[in-house]
Amino acid sequence: MRGVVMHAPGDVRVQEREDPTIVHPTDAVIRLAATCVCGSDLWPYRGIDAVDGPAPMGHEYAGVVEEVGGAVTSVRPGQFVVGSFFASDNTCEICRAGYQSSCVHRESLGALGAQAERLRVPLADGTLVATPGMPDDTMVPSLLAASDVLGTGWFGAVAAQAGPGRTVAVVGDGAVGLMAVLAAKRLGAERIIAMSRHESRQQLAIEYGATDIVTERGDEGVARVLEATDGLGAHSVIEAVGTQESMTQAIGATRPGGHVGHVGVSHDVSLDGRRLFFSHVHLHGGPAPVRRYLPELIDLIWNGRIDPGRVFDLTLPLDRAPEAYRAMDERRAVKALLRV
Amino acid sequence: MRGVVMHAPGDVRVQEREDPTIVHPTDAVIRLAATCVCGSDLWPYRGIDAVDGPAPMGHEYAGVVEEVGGAVTSVRPGQFVVGSFFASDNTCEICRAGYQSSCVHRESLGALGAQAERLRVPLADGTLVATPGMPDDTMVPSLLAASDVLGTGWFGAVAAQAGPGRTVAVVGDGAVGLMAVLAAKRLGAERIIAMSRHESRQQLAIEYGATDIVTERGDEGVARVLEATDGLGAHSVIEAVGTQESMTQAIGATRPGGHVGHVGVSHDVSLDGRRLFFSHVHLHGGPAPVRRYLPELIDLIWNGRIDPGRVFDLTLPLDRAPEAYRAMDERRAVKALLRV
Repeated sequence: MRGVVMHAPGDVRVQEREDPTIVHPTDAVIRLAATCVCGSDLWPYRGIDAVDGPAPMGHEYAGVVEEVGGAVTSVRPGQFVVGSFFASDNTCEICRAGYQSSCVHRESLGALGAQAERLRVPLADGTLVATPGMPDDTMVPSLLAASDVLGTGWFGAVAAQAGPGRTVAVVGDGAVGLMAVLAAKRLGAERIIAMSRHESRQQLAIEYGATDIVTERGDEGVARVLEATDGLGAHSVIEAVGTQESMTQAIGATRPGGHVGHVGVSHDVSLDGRRLFFSHVHLHGGPAPVRRYLPELIDLIWNGRIDPGRVFDLTLPLDRAPEAYRAMDERRAVKALLRV
Repeated sequence: MRGVVMHAPGDVRVQEREDPTIVHPTDAVIRLAATCVCGSDLWPYRGIDAVDGPAPMGHEYAGVVEEVGGAVTSVRPGQFVVGSFFASDNTCEICRAGYQSSCVHRESLGALGAQAERLRVPLADGTLVATPGMPDDTMVPSLLAASDVLGTGWFGAVAAQAGPGRTVAVVGDGAVGLMAVLAAKRLGAERIIAMSRHESRQQLAIEYGATDIVTERGDEGVARVLEATDGLGAHSVIEAVGTQESMTQAIGATRPGGHVGHVGVSHDVSLDGRRLFFSHVHLHGGPAPVRRYLPELIDLIWNGRIDPGRVFDLTLPLDRAPEAYRAMDERRAVKALLRV
């Protein structure tokens, strides 16, 4: 089959890869309808994370089940399914508490490479959720978004306790940040401050429910949020970048007793204990337990209540994956969808 | 009046200080029944925090109102009162949300020096809570504990979401840690693991409700908690020390999705963002909003439902404060009460 492989920073190729097969009786093999490039794929692409030899890429996927192992009972060949970037048994104590991305049996899909024609999904019963029927093509981008960016933005908004009567600020205007705006709106937030310097992203943020735009960053950005909240800070702040600046900005923009939901994969971040102590914030985040939200998110998409697929502003066939990486690297695209 | 003044690390004296008077119409002046030495007083005593010239000491207090300013309406001369180490208006949006120790008008009582015969308390209406009547002498230590260590341990347990069905671990066997054990028990925790190497403190922890004792620290301590919790970690961990080791231990001993309540005043702590991210814990803490809990804590003490005063294992008259500091510094006492 064809699949994306990263050979070195900046060197991404679409090449022949071995077809996946059932390895464990709990596996499923799916034929992808679409996959995409993640902001986190840009870390190795930019040489910030190491690339250790050729690595299959991609961890976001939606498609049709082709084959299941003998122990799989909840999905069957022919069903359209969405899954998370971590496979989970969905039965252990950690899963049952809603933290499937820390499942005691979790496996990263990243290593398996979802930017490909087919994908082996471990622990299929606990990982995949079938849609009510076969979606039409226009719905595929939204279902694919549920696989990671929507679920991650949603977790960020839940972790930040976005909800009625609360002012929410979102640090980061990438796909996850935009999805966090959508989630905050859907969760009933009264006011949503999107922090963005890019006009097209501001526009999408507003369409997704942002009520205020703050273009400043760092201390100035914090000052704008404080000004907008009677000097107190937002009740809820979603951190969707993962840098020292964004994390500092998120904590600084949160009022005492408020909640920071951090979902940007942390890079070189170091938190000063004393500042954190006196900030009085709640801090929660990590790799989003997307599986927790998948049934609800699929339902919202299936019924046309949310349209997260608009976050994909570039669509290319799988074979043109290198262009997709370049466009995202150069910030010409928020998020690129690859049609398989 | 007589009061405790720190002149330099290790140099604490009881000397004549100016009598406090009403400065603002919202002030009260109280005559202390008792005060005490806090673990945090040991940081400058040990030279870890700087001592900038002679400084009045103490921020924990309980006593009788002597005089109130013209704007004070909720307490009156003759009443026995307890207050927190931060004065708060208890009416601002932050106070109403339960974070009185980050009140927009907060004032630290520490600078005013509660280890003395009398104390001016700013924002008396929002800071002081009167007991239902005049307590007898045996109840004074428990009421004094409510002023800081009990309220702080309680906040730690609430922040860590200690409650029914949950396994709680407490890092730190000082007064706050012991109070956190009491709080976790009172909040209905199923199992309480006290981390302590000192036999007398272990004994008190057990009397306050600890079900397990772990004597190891650091990675070994974490390993013991994991062993005791099917490899998952505790649901709730209260960090009551404030060092890098204790914070690392607390996060490491918490299961994914669990809660860390950190109430040890943070010293030289730096949290690795990536480790925090993948730990999946909730982190909340800071200076305890003791005022939030005072009415409930006073009620529990008044009705004999809790006995936090036993945490004072040394009682001396105010004039012997230097001995109290020494005993705590040398860990011969958990917490020293000073009778005024």
